[in-house]
Amino acid sequence: MSGIAEVARLAGVSKSTASRALGGTGYVSDDTRRRVEEAAAEIGYVPSTSAVSLATGRTQNIGVVMPYLNRWFFAEVLEGIQESLLERGLDLTLYDAKPGTDGRARIFEDFLARKRFDGLIAVGLEPDDDEVGRLVSLGRPVVNVVGPTDSTTVVAIDDDYAARRATEHLVALGHRRIAFIGGQPDRHWAQVDRRRLEGYRTAMSDAGLADFTTHIPSDVTLPGGYASAVDVLADTRSRPTAIVATCDEVAIGAIIAARRLGVQVPSDLSVIGIDDHEFADMFSLTTLQQIPREQGRVAVELLLAHLTDPDRPKSVVRMKAKLVVRNSTTALDPRQSAVAVDGRDSVGAARQPR
Amino acid sequence: MSGIAEVARLAGVSKSTASRALGGTGYVSDDTRRRVEEAAAEIGYVPSTSAVSLATGRTQNIGVVMPYLNRWFFAEVLEGIQESLLERGLDLTLYDAKPGTDGRARIFEDFLARKRFDGLIAVGLEPDDDEVGRLVSLGRPVVNVVGPTDSTTVVAIDDDYAARRATEHLVALGHRRIAFIGGQPDRHWAQVDRRRLEGYRTAMSDAGLADFTTHIPSDVTLPGGYASAVDVLADTRSRPTAIVATCDEVAIGAIIAARRLGVQVPSDLSVIGIDDHEFADMFSLTTLQQIPREQGRVAVELLLAHLTDPDRPKSVVRMKAKLVVRNSTTALDPRQSAVAVDGRDSVGAARQPR
Repeated sequence: MSGIAEVARLAGVSKSTASRALGGTGYVSDDTRRRVEEAAAEIGYVPSTSAVSLATGRTQNIGVVMPYLNRWFFAEVLEGIQESLLERGLDLTLYDAKPGTDGRARIFEDFLARKRFDGLIAVGLEPDDDEVGRLVSLGRPVVNVVGPTDSTTVVAIDDDYAARRATEHLVALGHRRIAFIGGQPDRHWAQVDRRRLEGYRTAMSDAGLADFTTHIPSDVTLPGGYASAVDVLADTRSRPTAIVATCDEVAIGAIIAARRLGVQVPSDLSVIGIDDHEFADMFSLTTLQQIPREQGRVAVELLLAHLTDPDRPKSVVRMKAKLVVRNSTTALDPRQSAVAVDGRDSVGAARQPR
Repeated sequence: MSGIAEVARLAGVSKSTASRALGGTGYVSDDTRRRVEEAAAEIGYVPSTSAVSLATGRTQNIGVVMPYLNRWFFAEVLEGIQESLLERGLDLTLYDAKPGTDGRARIFEDFLARKRFDGLIAVGLEPDDDEVGRLVSLGRPVVNVVGPTDSTTVVAIDDDYAARRATEHLVALGHRRIAFIGGQPDRHWAQVDRRRLEGYRTAMSDAGLADFTTHIPSDVTLPGGYASAVDVLADTRSRPTAIVATCDEVAIGAIIAARRLGVQVPSDLSVIGIDDHEFADMFSLTTLQQIPREQGRVAVELLLAHLTDPDRPKSVVRMKAKLVVRNSTTALDPRQSAVAVDGRDSVGAARQPR
């Protein structure tokens, strides 16, 4: 963690401006505020006291709504929120709102309406219009992690950029048959996965590879990535030479599937993810790194700023994921490009999964 | 989910006795109560209303304290608790109490002392004596999931049994060089992992294999199991033919390590875990199955029973994990037993991990 001076330097403003922008008091332009918040997010800076004493509303309790508790991203964001609230002596009340469940309906209809919190952080909630209406009508500050909604302050990474950068990395290595894996058009297809698919498509078009664009649907989980990759990799003729996965869990599932099938990563198949999941290093996974724990901390900071200054304008903090190159991606083997042309596979027979 | 009739049948009592035992009203013997609770836990039965209306204390809020949010067991228990509270219109306030942190000290000193909850569920907390004292002095009902403490009601699996059963499975397959992996004697060595190690030792002794008893320390995580297994499996001369892992995450880490090193599972190495983790099926992992989500639901049920009847005696619900045989364990190859004797390895050179 670094100080306010570092934030100011990164944002190209004075320390007092940076301090005003983060404390939520005094005038700064929206553009400056955004740059300062991005700089703070980038280095994980969290002001220690300013907003806190003013933020002691009636309940001293912050509500957190999220659709999954048992996935890496969500657990990490939750830990970041928890740490940050703990430092400030604030309680955390948790609402688990799985898409399409009665429980979710009840949370929106009954639990949130009780308003037993000073403010609310929604993580990857992807609320529908009705739900957004209910959130806004609470009359309490709301911060969304991941978003997206125009109605609240949002902390997220630039999903489009992350997927474009991942795809460009593979293009630069000579790959053309690059497939995108993850997301089910017919089943709770999260907007974050749609935006990443769009980023991939844009990069493919920009590289003149629009004809090679392929979306392999999968559940956005490790077993989901595994199951879909087994299907795709088993056919040696149509097999892609590289995969962009919508997240690291899906990427790791694909790597496990490849190993099962005797497909060597990276010599036969390059795989890149988005996350820098705790398992990424173990699988030597090249990825676009985000730090969800910091997103949680920044969300708390922004929520407290809104509590301190109810007139504070809504803002969007969009962080840039950073390319981390490990050993799951490599330059295309010239023999592989031939496969697409003559339909033969020089890699050897794939072993069937057990 | 099944009904009270099924619970009564399993416990060998009448429906009205089962109902009394679970509702916490009227006399039933401790032994009967335990049998009924175990039967209810086994089929995931949760009474829908009885205790609820009486359990509306001042806060309508239940506190949950746990040391990790981002591990499978804890996330599953939390989801079970959350589901169960949601059905009853009760809020959940979450406290993240990592071992050895300032945050944990603050939770015990400040947060819990505020008593902003009607009762508390502690999950895998492993409180020290001072912490147990503080929990008890709250004057609120406390239920521990995993335990262990004599001071509160506890829901857990029989760890000793699970590890013994796992070891006996390998012994029955002809293995002798069976190692136990998981737990660090010098670093927050959880009692659950110590009890499992003891269960393994007992089974090895009972089989006349005390001389082969080996504890391979590892972090109790997937990467931890991977790292320790890489070290152990790289030496083909001393390599065990079978591994009991303290949990599935460690077991899966060991399987990934084996694949990396060219050690075939199960023909060169049998691996068994404890959990039935969401990845167990993907890795064809033989394991002792527990259902943490149900432990969470049962914990809520017991807590509400204590709220309804403050004089209700403390109880221990200890569930039996069930052996689920998949493809990660097999009979010892007779050639392997020779390795220990002549020191040669017929399995082929192991590939070094990258």
